[in-house]
Amino acid sequence: MTRAGFPGLLVTHLPDVRYLCGFTGSSAALAITRRVARLFTDGRYTAQAAEEVSAARVEIVSSAPAVHAAQWLAAQSGVSLAGFDPAHTTVAELSRLRAALPASLRRAFLQALPVPLVEPLRMVKDEDELTLIVEAALLGCRLFDHILSFLRPGLAEFEVAAELEHQARLLGAEGMSFETIVASGRRSALPHGRATAARLPRNGFLTLDFGIIHKGYCSDMTRTVHLGKPSARERSAYQAVLDAQLDAVAAVSAGASCGQVDEAARSVLRHAGLADAFTHSTGHGVGLEIHEPPRIGAGQTTRLLPGMVVTIEPGIYLPDEFGIRIEDMVAVTRNGGQVLTPAPKALIEL
Amino acid sequence: MTRAGFPGLLVTHLPDVRYLCGFTGSSAALAITRRVARLFTDGRYTAQAAEEVSAARVEIVSSAPAVHAAQWLAAQSGVSLAGFDPAHTTVAELSRLRAALPASLRRAFLQALPVPLVEPLRMVKDEDELTLIVEAALLGCRLFDHILSFLRPGLAEFEVAAELEHQARLLGAEGMSFETIVASGRRSALPHGRATAARLPRNGFLTLDFGIIHKGYCSDMTRTVHLGKPSARERSAYQAVLDAQLDAVAAVSAGASCGQVDEAARSVLRHAGLADAFTHSTGHGVGLEIHEPPRIGAGQTTRLLPGMVVTIEPGIYLPDEFGIRIEDMVAVTRNGGQVLTPAPKALIEL
Repeated sequence: MTRAGFPGLLVTHLPDVRYLCGFTGSSAALAITRRVARLFTDGRYTAQAAEEVSAARVEIVSSAPAVHAAQWLAAQSGVSLAGFDPAHTTVAELSRLRAALPASLRRAFLQALPVPLVEPLRMVKDEDELTLIVEAALLGCRLFDHILSFLRPGLAEFEVAAELEHQARLLGAEGMSFETIVASGRRSALPHGRATAARLPRNGFLTLDFGIIHKGYCSDMTRTVHLGKPSARERSAYQAVLDAQLDAVAAVSAGASCGQVDEAARSVLRHAGLADAFTHSTGHGVGLEIHEPPRIGAGQTTRLLPGMVVTIEPGIYLPDEFGIRIEDMVAVTRNGGQVLTPAPKALIEL
Repeated sequence: MTRAGFPGLLVTHLPDVRYLCGFTGSSAALAITRRVARLFTDGRYTAQAAEEVSAARVEIVSSAPAVHAAQWLAAQSGVSLAGFDPAHTTVAELSRLRAALPASLRRAFLQALPVPLVEPLRMVKDEDELTLIVEAALLGCRLFDHILSFLRPGLAEFEVAAELEHQARLLGAEGMSFETIVASGRRSALPHGRATAARLPRNGFLTLDFGIIHKGYCSDMTRTVHLGKPSARERSAYQAVLDAQLDAVAAVSAGASCGQVDEAARSVLRHAGLADAFTHSTGHGVGLEIHEPPRIGAGQTTRLLPGMVVTIEPGIYLPDEFGIRIEDMVAVTRNGGQVLTPAPKALIEL
């Protein structure tokens, strides 16, 4: 804050609030000066805030926490202006916050941070966070192992999702980190195929993309398996995606740019004549949110740092035929990348 | 749009996009003029958009859909300005959109809508929507019925959530509409108690607050049951919450203000000496989103209209003792309110 020239900081993005002070409720704002921090939340969270928050004083308010936080900052001596996060503050919210300030402060007191202050902290995970992320990722691997013995032709996709999510809960997950994707047969060509009533075919691909939440931290992994015997064309397509995935994982290293990692996957698929079938970016950061910076996409110049955790998930989608995606979570270390989701990736035939 | 003076409209809030054109993907923007509409999404959704969208032409783009939508609007003849929704557009997003426009249009082309245009449409559900919401609510009731026979002392809260969510999936739900709340014993005093490893007591309250998603529409209901024999104090507290809930349900009627409905619940609890224990508002709208306008809270002047669907969910929370909440979904009709979640509300002792 000092370097950025902001004596006050208003934090309203809930994952940032949780990261900074531990509070996990659904309504809160955190006000920070160079000396103190204060968390504002409402009466539903009195007990929970007392239990979870130690780094900030807690104030229970009966109306919008962010308004109270902004007013509190404006009343602190030595706080001439406060930064807010323009990526997580709506135009309407900013108007409301400004209107609640004394007239003399309305125009200039709240200023958009020119660069994010919390995001760079959150991108690099500390040891405690890495421990939780490793646990989350391994729980995901156990689910994949479990579901392999459950899969059979004729099951509805939603029955597969139901089993996966039930098992996740029984293994202690707090919930799923996103809507479970179960896409079978031709539906595997939908990169974001929801689990529908469609039945698993006797012969065809099945893509499973799922993640759980463990103590607030998200896991994310994808495996594509084959029911019945794959054709030569299916086999070679799978191998191309796997090669792309392995090359991108190998490109993960402190100092590499996100664009370089993306290009490692993309060039393999380009050489296989599948460039047009790879319709999304290679990956994204993951942590308290399922999608966080950095983005592993074409041309992205952000450089990887030790402690970042990203997904590597190239895929190809051939409409009316099939799709294949393989995804791991990878932690960036000083000397390369460590795969956190060590489930098998060689083509599984069921 | 004509009445509001906006020849162009930029819609980026995904539930609004879905409501207006049927597209359910996770990345999209809809551009509307008085004559045509165009949906912008990315390559992951080519097949899905073709399948789901008929009311708008679809354009697949390789970068931010909202930027393309704004540029497209700016290029339409007769469109001198376009409205955006300030409640769902971040400060950073607005800067990005403006920067992508021709220099002469940067300042004035995109203007915040002074009143929401899509929200009033979405608040009043049409027949097709009501059918889906009724189905969603009844599925919720079936889950409650199912879980009653599953509950027993010693189960972990998360095992209850697991069973509920598994059954929801098997009954065809697309997912849960929010994180399932299972709060037992003293934890029932947490209005938003997550399902933890805490075990159901031999004697105490258990609050279950859960909802499912059915064809995009959310259900939401809460029941509080008692394990073992309730004390006289528990019984009278339960009766007070039930009376408050029934009075608020009875106050639901076309023309009533949201504040009147809230007061119907609040006054019962006030007379019971429990005003301070009722720490939240009485309810909220529900539809494509689990929390939508209107808000049923103190002083809210919005008037109920036939076709609105709201929750009625008073609760009391006595820290270190217990909590009780009872919630129904209620559809506003010309002559009153119709309860959509007809599961029993008399105190159940298990």
